[in-house]
Amino acid sequence: MNVTVHGRTQHFRTVTFDRARNFVLLIEQRLLPHEFKIVPAKNFKETAVAIRDMIVRGAGAIGATAAYGLAQGSFAFHGNDLKKFSAHVEKVYQTLKDARPTAVDPVNAMNDVRREMARGKTVEEKQSLALAAAEEFANEDVHHCEEIGGHGAKLIRNGMKILTHCNAGWLAFVDIGTATAPMYAAQKLGKKFHVFCDETRPRSQGATLTAWELAQQKISHQIIADNAAGHLMQRGEIDMVIVGSDRTLGRTGEVANKIGTYTKAVLAARHKIPFYVAIPLSTIDWNLKSGLKIPIEDRNEKEVLGAWGINLHGKREFVRVANPTSGARNPGFDVTPPELITGIITPAGIFKPKELWKRRRELGFAG
Amino acid sequence: MNVTVHGRTQHFRTVTFDRARNFVLLIEQRLLPHEFKIVPAKNFKETAVAIRDMIVRGAGAIGATAAYGLAQGSFAFHGNDLKKFSAHVEKVYQTLKDARPTAVDPVNAMNDVRREMARGKTVEEKQSLALAAAEEFANEDVHHCEEIGGHGAKLIRNGMKILTHCNAGWLAFVDIGTATAPMYAAQKLGKKFHVFCDETRPRSQGATLTAWELAQQKISHQIIADNAAGHLMQRGEIDMVIVGSDRTLGRTGEVANKIGTYTKAVLAARHKIPFYVAIPLSTIDWNLKSGLKIPIEDRNEKEVLGAWGINLHGKREFVRVANPTSGARNPGFDVTPPELITGIITPAGIFKPKELWKRRRELGFAG
Repeated sequence: MNVTVHGRTQHFRTVTFDRARNFVLLIEQRLLPHEFKIVPAKNFKETAVAIRDMIVRGAGAIGATAAYGLAQGSFAFHGNDLKKFSAHVEKVYQTLKDARPTAVDPVNAMNDVRREMARGKTVEEKQSLALAAAEEFANEDVHHCEEIGGHGAKLIRNGMKILTHCNAGWLAFVDIGTATAPMYAAQKLGKKFHVFCDETRPRSQGATLTAWELAQQKISHQIIADNAAGHLMQRGEIDMVIVGSDRTLGRTGEVANKIGTYTKAVLAARHKIPFYVAIPLSTIDWNLKSGLKIPIEDRNEKEVLGAWGINLHGKREFVRVANPTSGARNPGFDVTPPELITGIITPAGIFKPKELWKRRRELGFAG
Repeated sequence: MNVTVHGRTQHFRTVTFDRARNFVLLIEQRLLPHEFKIVPAKNFKETAVAIRDMIVRGAGAIGATAAYGLAQGSFAFHGNDLKKFSAHVEKVYQTLKDARPTAVDPVNAMNDVRREMARGKTVEEKQSLALAAAEEFANEDVHHCEEIGGHGAKLIRNGMKILTHCNAGWLAFVDIGTATAPMYAAQKLGKKFHVFCDETRPRSQGATLTAWELAQQKISHQIIADNAAGHLMQRGEIDMVIVGSDRTLGRTGEVANKIGTYTKAVLAARHKIPFYVAIPLSTIDWNLKSGLKIPIEDRNEKEVLGAWGINLHGKREFVRVANPTSGARNPGFDVTPPELITGIITPAGIFKPKELWKRRRELGFAG
């Protein structure tokens, strides 16, 4: 999407590849929203560190980064010995995989790349095929988000007020994003609307990342405390909710997403406000039989007990807000049941959550 | 309630009067939870400033402070001229009233004091009666909270997990508090339970004040992000909700309280979890006919865009969390409809919200 730096507006993806220098180029997301900076990962180990340390985060974005990282690592091999090359690539694969051991996207993306590489007969051929496959993965990610945008934009009417939670924006993918895709597509169609960004405590991704994205794209928006959406709905000030999802169960239509999503779905249902979840097909889990089986990570209590921000002197700093002798409970995700979800916006169209299983073949479930 | 300072546990009220020095003594609430300090307001003007600058906040606490302030001001008069004394008292009254012009509690409290003063025949008699009336007001405030605690404690069973929102604790009254009163009373009865304190963004009174109170009273508790309660309810980890109220409509049973209260009530209803509101009778508004008519103050957006806390060097500091080019919407309160409220805990007993109007005579409505 567009970013304006020093008055100049340019298009950026979250991750790109510099073939000449064999660098993976990343938006340093930990500096946002206070500073915009592209940083190079100069070898596959630095790329793995960038994934591990969350310079890049979000399903599509870390998938593409790992795919590029595998190509980058393969280019670092010099010689013609296929056996040694293969051992080298395996080491690169493991290093990148271990950067975020529980994430599925890097693994899926790198498996795509490896499958393509297998078609090459020489080291050089395999290296070229790796990069082509990584580029293909990134382009596909963008294409899927564009398709989500195309379907979702039809739901947005002029003058609407839309609530979103956390960040399922372009920073989490290679470009465009999922929950934000309908907004960006509707803007292109000339539609006018207003977005309320839930702050999304404890990590505040709505106040930081989503608000930054919307500001860069010049979309009318305001940040609200997570406590405020219910009141705004009650007073008729929210017309639609669109969120993303970390994992959607294909068998049940349940949606796991950032903590607080469930609350917004309950409120929307009470006020008969449409509640949409925008997802790429890769985040559908076709195996799990119940949302109760989704492990909910209890994150570090420090996130709840304070906040990161910029102090008066422009320095990034953590402040302890809470009573110093109190602890916190910090579940990272929650699960929204299908009856609260109006529709799942996918690249293949908009479906009722319970429809996913019926359509599993066309949605790519091979099981 | 008890506060432990340097290992020594002592009982404190939020506001007391030092007759010898003619000082109003206040807990400096703006320093909490990071520092506990009693500060003297050395004359009625300083007492007004303390109310204005929120050294003391909360309905009962500012009521008692204004009552003591009026007594303090009357003692500052020297002489026997009743006419001059009366003009002086009027000036004190106005100064204290103007400190928080929209608050009703200081006015009600000072009217009590003035009514008592009218019985005196000399300046000296009137001064004594003023102090006695102020003491009586403060003691009544404590007594009402004790009664709320007595009724509410019966609802708390061993092993319960209780959610509360914002701070309707003893710091907001002279002692004991309203939403916290059932907890403190249950603790005295030897009951064991656990409290989840909603952080209560944007001002975080749950994470700061309520958590501090519960820690001082050694009640088991954890702070949670405002986003987390829905998930905890879904997983069966919350058995009851108790909150306070800024204004309860006697005619409709609607409850105005800190932003986010309505959301918790909607979630509790979905999960069939009892939702209680604890209030002194003085906060019942017998006139207003609809919750939609309660003006909802839009507060400064800065509260949403950042957070106050203690930095690594122990200094209190505001950090900007949000994207610097985004604004915020910051409604301060919301209104919860009666069908979501299991009961209103008052000093006179626990009532269904719709029962208030039927019982208006016994609850003190003279209209």
